[in-house]
Amino acid sequence: MVTIKDIANRLGIAVSTVSKGLNNASDISDETRQLVLDTAIEMGYTSRKLKASGSRKVCIFIENMDYENIEQFGYEIIVGFKLSAARRKWDVSVIPTNLTLQTEEKYDSYMLKNGYSGAFLLGFTLHDDWVKQLNKTTVPTVLLDNYIEKNAHVGYVGTDSNEGIDSAVSHLHDLGHKKIAFLNGSKNSMVSEQRNQAFINSIIKHGLVPEEKLIQYGYYVPDCAKDYVPGFLEDGATAIMCASDLIATGVIAEVLKHGLRVPEDISVIGFDDLPIASQLSPSLTTIRQDRTDLGKSAFLLLDGLVHGISTSKLLLRAKFITRESTGPRKS
Amino acid sequence: MVTIKDIANRLGIAVSTVSKGLNNASDISDETRQLVLDTAIEMGYTSRKLKASGSRKVCIFIENMDYENIEQFGYEIIVGFKLSAARRKWDVSVIPTNLTLQTEEKYDSYMLKNGYSGAFLLGFTLHDDWVKQLNKTTVPTVLLDNYIEKNAHVGYVGTDSNEGIDSAVSHLHDLGHKKIAFLNGSKNSMVSEQRNQAFINSIIKHGLVPEEKLIQYGYYVPDCAKDYVPGFLEDGATAIMCASDLIATGVIAEVLKHGLRVPEDISVIGFDDLPIASQLSPSLTTIRQDRTDLGKSAFLLLDGLVHGISTSKLLLRAKFITRESTGPRKS
Repeated sequence: MVTIKDIANRLGIAVSTVSKGLNNASDISDETRQLVLDTAIEMGYTSRKLKASGSRKVCIFIENMDYENIEQFGYEIIVGFKLSAARRKWDVSVIPTNLTLQTEEKYDSYMLKNGYSGAFLLGFTLHDDWVKQLNKTTVPTVLLDNYIEKNAHVGYVGTDSNEGIDSAVSHLHDLGHKKIAFLNGSKNSMVSEQRNQAFINSIIKHGLVPEEKLIQYGYYVPDCAKDYVPGFLEDGATAIMCASDLIATGVIAEVLKHGLRVPEDISVIGFDDLPIASQLSPSLTTIRQDRTDLGKSAFLLLDGLVHGISTSKLLLRAKFITRESTGPRKS
Repeated sequence: MVTIKDIANRLGIAVSTVSKGLNNASDISDETRQLVLDTAIEMGYTSRKLKASGSRKVCIFIENMDYENIEQFGYEIIVGFKLSAARRKWDVSVIPTNLTLQTEEKYDSYMLKNGYSGAFLLGFTLHDDWVKQLNKTTVPTVLLDNYIEKNAHVGYVGTDSNEGIDSAVSHLHDLGHKKIAFLNGSKNSMVSEQRNQAFINSIIKHGLVPEEKLIQYGYYVPDCAKDYVPGFLEDGATAIMCASDLIATGVIAEVLKHGLRVPEDISVIGFDDLPIASQLSPSLTTIRQDRTDLGKSAFLLLDGLVHGISTSKLLLRAKFITRESTGPRKS
């Protein structure tokens, strides 16, 4: 096992200086501190203090995702994670991040300095600095909806889009719809691409024709509906599937603006089953992601990674929920 | 919740008869017993006795897989499962099955009658009667290397073939090999098909040409090598990847029979990293599946299903291990 002395030898500096660097003391320069941290990480050093104290601290980094009240996507994910962590007696810190934090400090340094044994990353995209660093991290890390190739310290948790989307297409197909549009989330996201492919596969499987104009990437807010719904309607869509319930609320508003009714003229399907889905009028047919279970599973995966079990992927089933926003195609 | 009385009402028979049927009493006919069990299962009845006693019994069904000593594939999987189960205080029975048991008794009936809350199925194929019944089961069930669509009570655990196979192809490509053969396992298996696709994808990714003659399905025993290795050699293969270490032992024997050496003339790669892989001479380069972790993960997944967490897939990372059976292509 790598010790503080090994690091001091490698760098040709005093053991006390290494110790100061690892413990964030103020009487050494920032350059030396960073050098100590980088070397410690490169050599696979895990703070002895951390191990000796039996520290059981993990954190959730969250970005680009609302989580502060139960109406929002991230809320139950965090609750689920904390529930499972509490059972195994781990402390969880929730840390909102931003691009500045990510450029100021390397991911591994941040983790080592702050004594976290692992992290769950929510709402990050493949373009984030920290996500790019995950190719080489040795810190046990779980990502929601993102996958890092060939690093045994990193796992991915998510919901299987294929089955959920296929159930939704089946439902619309059974109702007689032939022109089904799909308003996806942002393009630079693994999960959006998976859903796009799942949609196209399912359309073909049901003997329908995937039409380019009816398959569009938007972004994960209601407002994007106004950019795409007019085109969908013009091209004859009678049903619109959306990559989130929030997008669906925007789509319904836009359909009404065109003097059409949901579901009499246009059927709409959401994704996620946020609390709002059942409160809307008409209530929203949607594809449920069980967010509490996502959080619980993320913790189990992280706990496994901390103990050397290299899980690469854990996917939950999606559940299709029929409500009032879908109906037979108008003949 | 469905009670014994509900079942009695549905069938128009006495509560005492239903109770006898559920408890495997000898003084009712086999037909009545089966009718009671079928109805109980259809109505979603879970034995009250089971719940009241806090029974925590699960089982491992095993078929077509050796598991009795540490040299064999199933051994550590079962050890890992039992380790995790013991921590959570679950009893585990290991039950070897065969086609007769599967035709004599329905899966759900067997589980209800014997008071098991869930099962882990090892070595079953998609053609097995019980696997076919899993489309509709309500019994929490985990399969190794097989996937059941759209049933939230069933999960799949396995090793990610893509990364392991891609690492192996990279390794051979770096050693200068251009004609790489793949001797797969049995054709009627989901995991064999995944590995086939993974191999083809990786060959193309490395700028090589997938040749039909060099990609063959065999079966999971050393003996299948003699049917395919002569053809591979004739077609100019300089490296042979195998879907298991046991197949690789057969391939090496066959290569030697042709007066060629491993790795000087032909490189060979296995899959699994059974104990034999490091004991062979030359020792075998292989793609490791961590079988203890597979067992542990299967239990975690099953425990989740019992508690209503619908995990559909859990995949472990494969680890590529370089030993002596691979070397530079002979120029």
